[in-house]
Amino acid sequence: MNHFADRLLQVIRHSGHPLCVGLDPHLPLIPKPFRVGDMQPGQAQTAQAVEQFLLAVLDQLVGKVGVIKPQIAFFEQLGWRGIQVLERIVSQARQRGLLVILDAKRGDIGSTAQAYSAAYLQAGACMEVDALTVNPYLGMDSLEPFVQNCVTYGKGLFVLVKTSNPGSGDFQDGLLQNGLQVYQNVAHHLAQYTSMLASPKSGWSGLGIVVGATFPGQAEDLRRQLPHSFFLIPGYGAQGASAKQATQGMIAGPNGLEGGVINASRAILYPARLSLSCTVTAWEQAIEQAITHAILDLKQAIA
Amino acid sequence: MNHFADRLLQVIRHSGHPLCVGLDPHLPLIPKPFRVGDMQPGQAQTAQAVEQFLLAVLDQLVGKVGVIKPQIAFFEQLGWRGIQVLERIVSQARQRGLLVILDAKRGDIGSTAQAYSAAYLQAGACMEVDALTVNPYLGMDSLEPFVQNCVTYGKGLFVLVKTSNPGSGDFQDGLLQNGLQVYQNVAHHLAQYTSMLASPKSGWSGLGIVVGATFPGQAEDLRRQLPHSFFLIPGYGAQGASAKQATQGMIAGPNGLEGGVINASRAILYPARLSLSCTVTAWEQAIEQAITHAILDLKQAIA
Repeated sequence: MNHFADRLLQVIRHSGHPLCVGLDPHLPLIPKPFRVGDMQPGQAQTAQAVEQFLLAVLDQLVGKVGVIKPQIAFFEQLGWRGIQVLERIVSQARQRGLLVILDAKRGDIGSTAQAYSAAYLQAGACMEVDALTVNPYLGMDSLEPFVQNCVTYGKGLFVLVKTSNPGSGDFQDGLLQNGLQVYQNVAHHLAQYTSMLASPKSGWSGLGIVVGATFPGQAEDLRRQLPHSFFLIPGYGAQGASAKQATQGMIAGPNGLEGGVINASRAILYPARLSLSCTVTAWEQAIEQAITHAILDLKQAIA
Repeated sequence: MNHFADRLLQVIRHSGHPLCVGLDPHLPLIPKPFRVGDMQPGQAQTAQAVEQFLLAVLDQLVGKVGVIKPQIAFFEQLGWRGIQVLERIVSQARQRGLLVILDAKRGDIGSTAQAYSAAYLQAGACMEVDALTVNPYLGMDSLEPFVQNCVTYGKGLFVLVKTSNPGSGDFQDGLLQNGLQVYQNVAHHLAQYTSMLASPKSGWSGLGIVVGATFPGQAEDLRRQLPHSFFLIPGYGAQGASAKQATQGMIAGPNGLEGGVINASRAILYPARLSLSCTVTAWEQAIEQAITHAILDLKQAIA
């Protein structure tokens, strides 16, 4: 069992870029070659269609990208069959060497947090992944069961600190009496766990944070607070942030900027100029182009 | 389609008390009459055992209690079969007249928040419930898709404001420059949505908040901020708060204190003095006593 941070560093160095592809199966956007029937959420054939679509996406990703981030909300919308599909996709992806960060933003207390942690971060769990996103609002004790499983099973955690959406300031910003913004106060508390989860080999921590590419200034501040944490960076591409903005919180490594995992979802899975009624071949070409374009864009930014 | 606040008020007035029973299927605590095999999370027989246990619990609750709160984490731990069981339990409970508040503490942005909202608050969804708990950390725009479905489908929302755990102060407390604590600032922002979701009939809002029974002083403050919001109150019983503390944020109504839904999970489902190897009859008597005891305790507190 390797340390999550070392595995992450390895796949990023091996692929030569920090691109992570988000798997967000939006039913209305899935192209024609994969659609079956009217794609209603509760139907067995819809879940099968989503599975075929995502297996085809995995085929495109393997060998080019090292990390994927399935967004569990889109699977929950399909009912239990959606969860079954996600379990299969996660298992397939991991077997094919991809690191899986499950974007679930879970957060709860005591035995409930333990149940979430066991569901996703325990070896042998139905949906064992490599890392999980969690929400810190309930407090440091709510994160403990996740941190414990990270230690025991070599897993990773990405704690929401400063999210990419326009409204993130509502409850993440605001100056506290200790002189810190609310999100900085979260990072301040996390410092103890980042060192507890530091890899003896690389020095990087298994405890990362989520920092939106749309807030490059805040990313720089947070890097000073948490020098050894990976940043999971949403907001690049479809949400409007450039590669330059997305890499702002990363730091110089042996082969350019590192310490970040930059996510793109819609820009890859649903290339803008592709018609919904495209052929399989047109879809394959478009997604391949989208992957290549994002990789080149990020390679330039980290160079 | 009735307004959620009116349905909630009706079931509470009809039952004569604000007790809500939490359905938390902790595998190690499920008593012998319902256990099958070694109760490993991923097995089909484990999911079936959990379903039989919870159906027996529902039999005990119907006619005594008006509201239940399944905790989705314990079902997620069982993999897709757990979600299948939860869908069936939720459907059964609603058919038998129980209101279902799904405790999922979801929170995300944009189309992801829409997917969560569609999964639980849309009419006809695989797991349609009456109300959902959500986490506000991502900001007001992250709550919008949930509020929209509450308007469209007469559903309810309980936003985490001040949670019951010891560490809740880490990121929920802290004085901001506007003179409010972080959790008070959340309540302040929520006010606009509470009026948007107010029932023309009762005046109560479909937007409620979660306030731990372990923080009665804060509950009083929050009641002044949000006079028309139901409080979902965890922390009573197993977590140590008394009925008196749990009712602190409630206000005088025609039949005693109202405006609160007080949750008990472990104290009801796993009565303290009952041995794990009990008979069905002993279990039935114990759970019936636990329900009766909690109801009497709360009835005295609201009188």
